[in-house]
Amino acid sequence: MTRVFNFSSGPAVLPESVLRQAAEEMLDWHGSGMSVMEMSHRGPQFMAILDEAQSLFRELLGVPDDYRTLFLQGGAIGEMAIVPMNLLGAKTSIDFVNTGTWSSKAMSEAGRYARINEVASSAATAFDRIPAFETWRLDPDAAYVHICSNETIGGVEYHWTPDTGDVPLVADVSSNILSAPLDVTKFGLLYGGAQKNVGPAGLTLVVVRDDLLGRALPITPCAFDFAQQSDNGSMLNTPPTYAIYIAGLVFRWLKAQGGLVAIEALNLRKAGLLYDTIDASGGFYVNPVAVADRSLMNVPFRLPDARLDAPFLAEAEALGMVQLKGHRSVGGMRASIYNAMPVEGVQRLVDHMLDFARRHG
Amino acid sequence: MTRVFNFSSGPAVLPESVLRQAAEEMLDWHGSGMSVMEMSHRGPQFMAILDEAQSLFRELLGVPDDYRTLFLQGGAIGEMAIVPMNLLGAKTSIDFVNTGTWSSKAMSEAGRYARINEVASSAATAFDRIPAFETWRLDPDAAYVHICSNETIGGVEYHWTPDTGDVPLVADVSSNILSAPLDVTKFGLLYGGAQKNVGPAGLTLVVVRDDLLGRALPITPCAFDFAQQSDNGSMLNTPPTYAIYIAGLVFRWLKAQGGLVAIEALNLRKAGLLYDTIDASGGFYVNPVAVADRSLMNVPFRLPDARLDAPFLAEAEALGMVQLKGHRSVGGMRASIYNAMPVEGVQRLVDHMLDFARRHG
Repeated sequence: MTRVFNFSSGPAVLPESVLRQAAEEMLDWHGSGMSVMEMSHRGPQFMAILDEAQSLFRELLGVPDDYRTLFLQGGAIGEMAIVPMNLLGAKTSIDFVNTGTWSSKAMSEAGRYARINEVASSAATAFDRIPAFETWRLDPDAAYVHICSNETIGGVEYHWTPDTGDVPLVADVSSNILSAPLDVTKFGLLYGGAQKNVGPAGLTLVVVRDDLLGRALPITPCAFDFAQQSDNGSMLNTPPTYAIYIAGLVFRWLKAQGGLVAIEALNLRKAGLLYDTIDASGGFYVNPVAVADRSLMNVPFRLPDARLDAPFLAEAEALGMVQLKGHRSVGGMRASIYNAMPVEGVQRLVDHMLDFARRHG
Repeated sequence: MTRVFNFSSGPAVLPESVLRQAAEEMLDWHGSGMSVMEMSHRGPQFMAILDEAQSLFRELLGVPDDYRTLFLQGGAIGEMAIVPMNLLGAKTSIDFVNTGTWSSKAMSEAGRYARINEVASSAATAFDRIPAFETWRLDPDAAYVHICSNETIGGVEYHWTPDTGDVPLVADVSSNILSAPLDVTKFGLLYGGAQKNVGPAGLTLVVVRDDLLGRALPITPCAFDFAQQSDNGSMLNTPPTYAIYIAGLVFRWLKAQGGLVAIEALNLRKAGLLYDTIDASGGFYVNPVAVADRSLMNVPFRLPDARLDAPFLAEAEALGMVQLKGHRSVGGMRASIYNAMPVEGVQRLVDHMLDFARRHG
């Protein structure tokens, strides 16, 4: 067995130790004689797994007592509609900051239920930055302000948290949750699909402040009603049990790494290796994002000639590095380097970049 | 490692050979150097996994060419709202046949979007049967007729398919899909959560006739719009990739068992062992369901005195049989004996029942 370095933007690399444990426990979890996949979600074994995952998640992220954490079925695109269903209440509009593909998607999903107010956008500069907070035209009557904390395609990330005053701040944190410390108290609601830093696809995490519960529109299905799910401990319906189990193992691994402070230091080091290589390449490699807003999770870069893309990728694959092709909408390369990507993987990529530029520059 | 016989109503037992293969492939699927959990859903490896799972599912169930099969995130409770969102179109009412807990749940979820017409119900006899077709007061203007093909709590199952003429028949088949041959052409739409006969929780299967697509209400989130998902090959959003992989292995296993004709014979044999034991117990064990409508998947039964429940369960557990406790709403016992429950498990349960009755009768 040879493991590759997998730079996929998601579903993405998981810690090898987590996969080893999952393989070992597949037929018999802790002497239960069952796989976690086979357990009733209401049985004592799975309840213990869910409780531990919830506790570790709250501990790692520092979730205050007045916030609920929900582990639900689905992913972020579904939540882009479910969040407005839950938070609109009697309000009629939502403020959105548009920083690229996923912000735009969230706007179009929410637009079914509310008037969308684009309070700031970096569209004019091809989504190469986070619009400066001073330029945001916030509406004090908005139901909430929505941001996408990290754009996986553009490679743009918030490294600061806006202060939206009395209007709740809502963030799609799918692609950078648990990659660095976050002050949860500045947010009304966080949501994200699991398949970047947390676990398998099919699990959605929601962190919501108590006072925002109970505002769901009458059209909200019970499975997607945060207040009902909170009252039922995320068990109003059958949760994605195996994905929650894997997430719990990832949380344990993250805690053993030293938690979010330690993982942020590692993520800064990994991203630094890549951006330094790009910036020192004399223009051979180009990342178009404003330096202050560059993503620590997704590093897109272009080569001087698109005809070099195929050999760059083929050689990378021969060196055991896969899924480096950029998103079809932007082309070039993209290295997604989530928590579970080891420094060695990034170092190997950097070595390849240097070698490739030397031969083709 | 000692495996138990797991009678959980869902998530439920999976074929041991499937779990073994999943464990072996956990760190490196077919030399890819990746776990299936880590694969991009748009990469060639996962696309091959999805294609094979779709093909096997269509082959096993005999899905005609004019039906789409969708593998989506979520579960049946979510679908109970999503199906009316997709099928109502300009219609304003839906016909429901009420056979117990899950029919009732589907009615309350659909009630957010349409007028609910309960065309038949077995509530008066404690949901002990499927109401005779002659008594159904069908409305020719209904958007569709909804049934639950198997009630997991009551243990009541349709062993025939109603002919609803021009009004599409819709069935929640969560708990008996792939347990016996089914004539798909008699249905407009089938939906079901995976966690009984198919795979891990978090995957929903939808089979829908082409002409019913494109009627989604404007409030329908894109992730839940069957037409959009169909146009995108179930990849409008990230599907539950690992659950689809396990489902594909279960489909392969099912095909190797001889497909639905062979598995139905086995299911009849397993259920027969249990019902025969109950009926020959001289009233010690009681199953309240009308004989013609007894479920092959979930066999509820009561002991003559509820104080015997605890010793029955404790002794069963000591014999390696778990999750036999009945649903909290009905009490007693429930043996869920889905496809992956071996005959040996049912035989061991029957032996325990006979021995227990002998000692306590």
